[in-house]
Amino acid sequence: MKINYPNPSIQTKQTRLTAVQSHGMIFEHALNLANEYYYNRNIAVVYKKPTPIQIVKVDYPSRNKARITEGYYKTPSTTDYNGVYKGRYIDYEAKETNNLSFSFKHIFPHQINHLLRVHDHGGIGFLIIFFKKVNEVYLLDIAIFNQLLTEAKAGGKQSISREQFQTLGKPVSLGYTPTIDYLKAVDEWYQL
Amino acid sequence: MKINYPNPSIQTKQTRLTAVQSHGMIFEHALNLANEYYYNRNIAVVYKKPTPIQIVKVDYPSRNKARITEGYYKTPSTTDYNGVYKGRYIDYEAKETNNLSFSFKHIFPHQINHLLRVHDHGGIGFLIIFFKKVNEVYLLDIAIFNQLLTEAKAGGKQSISREQFQTLGKPVSLGYTPTIDYLKAVDEWYQL
Repeated sequence: MKINYPNPSIQTKQTRLTAVQSHGMIFEHALNLANEYYYNRNIAVVYKKPTPIQIVKVDYPSRNKARITEGYYKTPSTTDYNGVYKGRYIDYEAKETNNLSFSFKHIFPHQINHLLRVHDHGGIGFLIIFFKKVNEVYLLDIAIFNQLLTEAKAGGKQSISREQFQTLGKPVSLGYTPTIDYLKAVDEWYQL
Repeated sequence: MKINYPNPSIQTKQTRLTAVQSHGMIFEHALNLANEYYYNRNIAVVYKKPTPIQIVKVDYPSRNKARITEGYYKTPSTTDYNGVYKGRYIDYEAKETNNLSFSFKHIFPHQINHLLRVHDHGGIGFLIIFFKKVNEVYLLDIAIFNQLLTEAKAGGKQSISREQFQTLGKPVSLGYTPTIDYLKAVDEWYQL
């Protein structure tokens, strides 16, 4: 007989972004839960890539367990997340900001190039930005981001305002399951 | 004036698989070089995911540099490589073997499930196997691998022979640039 115990992990997954937004990494955590949700419902296969670590020294205290005793964080060569959704390759970088605008300098040039390459090869590349102050999340296509960046380099504004995200990007609805339903925004923006 | 110094990194990239096959990690290294080649020629965007590390202790000897002083290798939750090619999501696991057959136990069940999910969502999922003894590389589609695995579970053979790779998979040509031209095999097998 199967007993339906209360499942604390499900409870955790229903934590609202509003309630926990002050904690660090909450945005990343919420995105991971969204991807877990999409995976479990067989909606998409999207994973966060592991953080690259440069390993310098490894000890072998026992036969089966290698212990890293010296290592350093490396700059990721690509973006945080990628996967497959409705037959399309999707790839994105997630960032959060305390301000009401998003400065171009928060994204590495090599990450922009990576996303533009993805776009060139028929994949879907975008940014997901979390505005903590107002608890809003926006999706912004990489080609549009790059257009704004080109204008910035020509002497224009050095950041993208929340208003620009509202008109040039797509708002992402926040809720319970999933906490960040960004694939709905992907559906709408890219007409999948 | 630009002086064309001899470029040692290009030399390295032309190293033949035959000449260096005795070294560990050579297959992975050759695949990374192939992906670098594909990237530089704007053919595809495929990366090896970083090895996941469980970080236990971090020191901060200086303000800007975090030093990991205790960490452990984790089992990857997905596969080694993924990316976008001709608008398609591709995902694969690379393995090498000293034998003339490939045992099913060399691939984790969760990696098989991951690749089958990729397949279900319209992506291209496969294995790349390097037979060191004969210096041959084969691509095997995940659905075919899974069919053979199902037969093995029903009491069939517990490994896939080189002959089966020849008939059910696609040989990958080995050469100079790229060392492992696996996307040619992808083109032919999946008719891209």
